[in-house]
Amino acid sequence: MTADQGHFLALSGGVGGAKLALGLSQVLPPEALSVLVNTGDDFTHLGLRICPDLDSLMYALSFRANQALGWGQEGETWQFLEALGQLGGETWFRLGDRDLATHIQRTQWLASGLTLTEVTQNLCRNLGIKITVLPMTDDVVATEIICQSGDVLAFQHYFVREQCQPPVLNVQFKGIETATLNPAVGALLDGRSDLTAVIICPSNPFVSVKPILDLDQTAERLIKSAAPVIAVSPIVSGLAIKGPAAKMMGEMSLPTSALGVAEYYVSNYPGVLDAFVIDRADESCREAIEALGLQVFITETIMQSLEDRKRLADDVMGFCKSMRA
Amino acid sequence: MTADQGHFLALSGGVGGAKLALGLSQVLPPEALSVLVNTGDDFTHLGLRICPDLDSLMYALSFRANQALGWGQEGETWQFLEALGQLGGETWFRLGDRDLATHIQRTQWLASGLTLTEVTQNLCRNLGIKITVLPMTDDVVATEIICQSGDVLAFQHYFVREQCQPPVLNVQFKGIETATLNPAVGALLDGRSDLTAVIICPSNPFVSVKPILDLDQTAERLIKSAAPVIAVSPIVSGLAIKGPAAKMMGEMSLPTSALGVAEYYVSNYPGVLDAFVIDRADESCREAIEALGLQVFITETIMQSLEDRKRLADDVMGFCKSMRA
Repeated sequence: MTADQGHFLALSGGVGGAKLALGLSQVLPPEALSVLVNTGDDFTHLGLRICPDLDSLMYALSFRANQALGWGQEGETWQFLEALGQLGGETWFRLGDRDLATHIQRTQWLASGLTLTEVTQNLCRNLGIKITVLPMTDDVVATEIICQSGDVLAFQHYFVREQCQPPVLNVQFKGIETATLNPAVGALLDGRSDLTAVIICPSNPFVSVKPILDLDQTAERLIKSAAPVIAVSPIVSGLAIKGPAAKMMGEMSLPTSALGVAEYYVSNYPGVLDAFVIDRADESCREAIEALGLQVFITETIMQSLEDRKRLADDVMGFCKSMRA
Repeated sequence: MTADQGHFLALSGGVGGAKLALGLSQVLPPEALSVLVNTGDDFTHLGLRICPDLDSLMYALSFRANQALGWGQEGETWQFLEALGQLGGETWFRLGDRDLATHIQRTQWLASGLTLTEVTQNLCRNLGIKITVLPMTDDVVATEIICQSGDVLAFQHYFVREQCQPPVLNVQFKGIETATLNPAVGALLDGRSDLTAVIICPSNPFVSVKPILDLDQTAERLIKSAAPVIAVSPIVSGLAIKGPAAKMMGEMSLPTSALGVAEYYVSNYPGVLDAFVIDRADESCREAIEALGLQVFITETIMQSLEDRKRLADDVMGFCKSMRA
């Protein structure tokens, strides 16, 4: 890629989005890519501030992601957790020994007065990450799952402790009304700097992308921005590649398909999306998605290898280019 | 031992004192032994409340002490610390992966409103420790080393970070004026329950025993108590078995010998000690120590094996018995 391609902004949740973000980081010069990351999943556990999506991003971008587990760090060990269990501590959230360093150092830096953006910058620098990783906000936003039973669960309690079992009625984001969008992204969206395209990574629409869009009029700012917005479907052949997106869609009476995701974005955030990237397996949805007013791009969207990540990133870059032409 | 032997109170610092405390725990029924532990070395590091002497005690008493290292837990690993170093965190205090569980759980329980005594009780119960381990106080007392250079160092900064290199002028205990002695021990010393003898473990007199004696008139309460007080010398043949005691004695112009320790206790805490246990290697000090008004007992005081610990504990029990007879 050349420098005249300007700047790309990717919106991402955790593991799924991180795959495309890693691909993008491999095909774009570092100064041309910012990733804006959901922080609604963040929580304080055992006194430590844990930011699962930021961590997934950082571990992926620094080639530390544990491929076998699908989360956490490569070469992770569990001595701490075993000892904690012996002491009667809470072990449902599986904190690895290496992972703990991230949470302890983050908590320390936050306590010293740094913003989450500054902390993330420090962590990225020390992990050798050259692209810009930004938390969606420096304020505290907490995703809560409203269960069909009426229970309201903090996201990690739903996601990890309850293993996504409780049927979901809806999702809410505590604190979102007063939270401010990361100022670096505000500048990009409000045209104060050059923005080529916005890429919504294949992340969970309800718990990963929605908090970003709902925050501080981000959706409205995306509509006003001159940059095209292109989303990659997290659903392929009716299945979520990772996480509870498909299960949640069923429970929330949305069609569990790439089309269902497109319909969700178009009906809840009309005018935000310009294009939608679906897998070849979902080619039959093309016309229905086009009928929603979206340009449709079709390619292989399942990313298993690093090469898959880079290829999809290259494809998405190509789609962006064709949209601007 | 039989139940009519009443209750023994051991005063202890960390590793050195823990050896005798473990021996005592093996030769006394659990309900007959309380160990009162120095908390002056405690500090908050990386947001975690760390109590090195309590931890040494607990790890020793639960047979988790790392014999090779001489501190920390057996089978310890260092993944956290390595990852923390990569993130630019402070690694001078070597926190093991298993050890971290103790600090994180303690910090959590303290934050939830439990006292350090209650937290220690929880930790001991979960580690399977049956004797009573008591922090000297639930208040915060912080040992500080006044260096000959004029610098004042927090104890762990002196002990671990600076590896005891700076010559010592004196030691002070921040917060000691207003700290309250652990109430369970107050009850023992003030005759509200049966106390057979007080054993001062072979711990550093200046940084491990002194804070306990200086706290809330503990020295005066020991004098008033009917129970005999017997101290085991931490110096054998002019050398400290563990830690900087001998080096500090030299720097503080005290004779580096078992006699020097006895003189220190007698001149600074007149009337507190009734008897002093020295190693056979220091037999030549006997008369000089007796001249200080102390009964002297001689035995092997170096504890390498568990058998050594039990034998010294048995010997000390015998000495206590002979003193009461």
